Amino acid sequence: MGVQQSRIRVDLSSQSARTPYLNSRLWLRETSKVHADASNFASGVSKREAYEQVLEQARALFVGQRNWVPELTQLDGSNLANAASLLWHCYHSLPNPSSAVNWAGFYVLDRTQQNQLILGPFMGKVACQTIAFGRGVCGKAAEEGKTVRVQDVDSFPGHIACDGDSQSEVVVPIVQNGKVMAIIDIDCAMKDGFDQEDQNALEELAALLSEACDF
Amino acid sequence: MGVQQSRIRVDLSSQSARTPYLNSRLWLRETSKVHADASNFASGVSKREAYEQVLEQARALFVGQRNWVPELTQLDGSNLANAASLLWHCYHSLPNPSSAVNWAGFYVLDRTQQNQLILGPFMGKVACQTIAFGRGVCGKAAEEGKTVRVQDVDSFPGHIACDGDSQSEVVVPIVQNGKVMAIIDIDCAMKDGFDQEDQNALEELAALLSEACDF
Repeated sequence: MGVQQSRIRVDLSSQSARTPYLNSRLWLRETSKVHADASNFASGVSKREAYEQVLEQARALFVGQRNWVPELTQLDGSNLANAASLLWHCYHSLPNPSSAVNWAGFYVLDRTQQNQLILGPFMGKVACQTIAFGRGVCGKAAEEGKTVRVQDVDSFPGHIACDGDSQSEVVVPIVQNGKVMAIIDIDCAMKDGFDQEDQNALEELAALLSEACDF
Repeated sequence: MGVQQSRIRVDLSSQSARTPYLNSRLWLRETSKVHADASNFASGVSKREAYEQVLEQARALFVGQRNWVPELTQLDGSNLANAASLLWHCYHSLPNPSSAVNWAGFYVLDRTQQNQLILGPFMGKVACQTIAFGRGVCGKAAEEGKTVRVQDVDSFPGHIACDGDSQSEVVVPIVQNGKVMAIIDIDCAMKDGFDQEDQNALEELAALLSEACDF
């Protein structure tokens, strides 16, 4: 138990269970500390509400983090690590196909090799460490600078099968000053894992990360 | 399905199921690619065997990665991200208390602030982004440069309760040239989650990471 840290248990049993992000916001305001409760998503909420919690938490996390640590590379890594955790627990609080998400994380631009991505923080099984622009779903999104949503990876030419369990995938580029600096990559072990609502929320998260991080 | 990548299904049904790392090594030798299969741990193996797979995979992953990407910071991040994934899936292949591991990951030395750790890649719920040397179990291990194993975190003065579920914890410093550059941090949702065997294996992994990464 932290001696320098007060812990507040959030009551999710009342009507506020329908707006979990409000509880989280309360918690953050009360303590100004990051807590694993941010990864607790109430059951029975809609996808929209779950994503709202992700974005709300992400905003709060990133603001604090920017204040604390000005150093760029580590800052990114820390923000991306917590963002991956938020996304993972968001998906697993939802029904299928969202619950079947089997990888959620980031690739960032390789600073030492042109047009290559390198593995960033993630939740899931070990993953390919580098991906060339143009290769697979991630490489295509990075090359084109726009979201690629694939309902059946087996039908996607050149799909990189890091994990044979993955059946569908969505990749959203994080763009700064017109340049792709990183990508959000989410895999699902079911086909048709992602719809337009997923895409919209992930694009909002990408915009948030673009503002919050200096890649 | 990758057109530039051959995938080999490893048969875990034979005697080799008792030595999963040998299968993994075979796979890596055959393809020289990272694959999610590295996170598949056979059931029924001992803790020693599971850790052997972690160390074997980690060695293979890090060697390839050093060859591919010379840039230091991103290299670390990529290695640590995959190492966290290996550890997470290792624990969850074992019986309790190992299966009750609820956080597995890294904090790295903050380059911008003396005696402070910053959150690195991990698996689990969102976590505190910075930890001062001396604070909590992580801070103590970083300050003292030696492993701290806590069987009941409630009895540890100044424990940082990032996640109220955590009941026990082991933290192993990664030391380079006599200086703590990062720590491995594993939390368990049961008391007495870690024994001397865990400590020995994690210290071996720390030594491996110390050789493989330039922090």
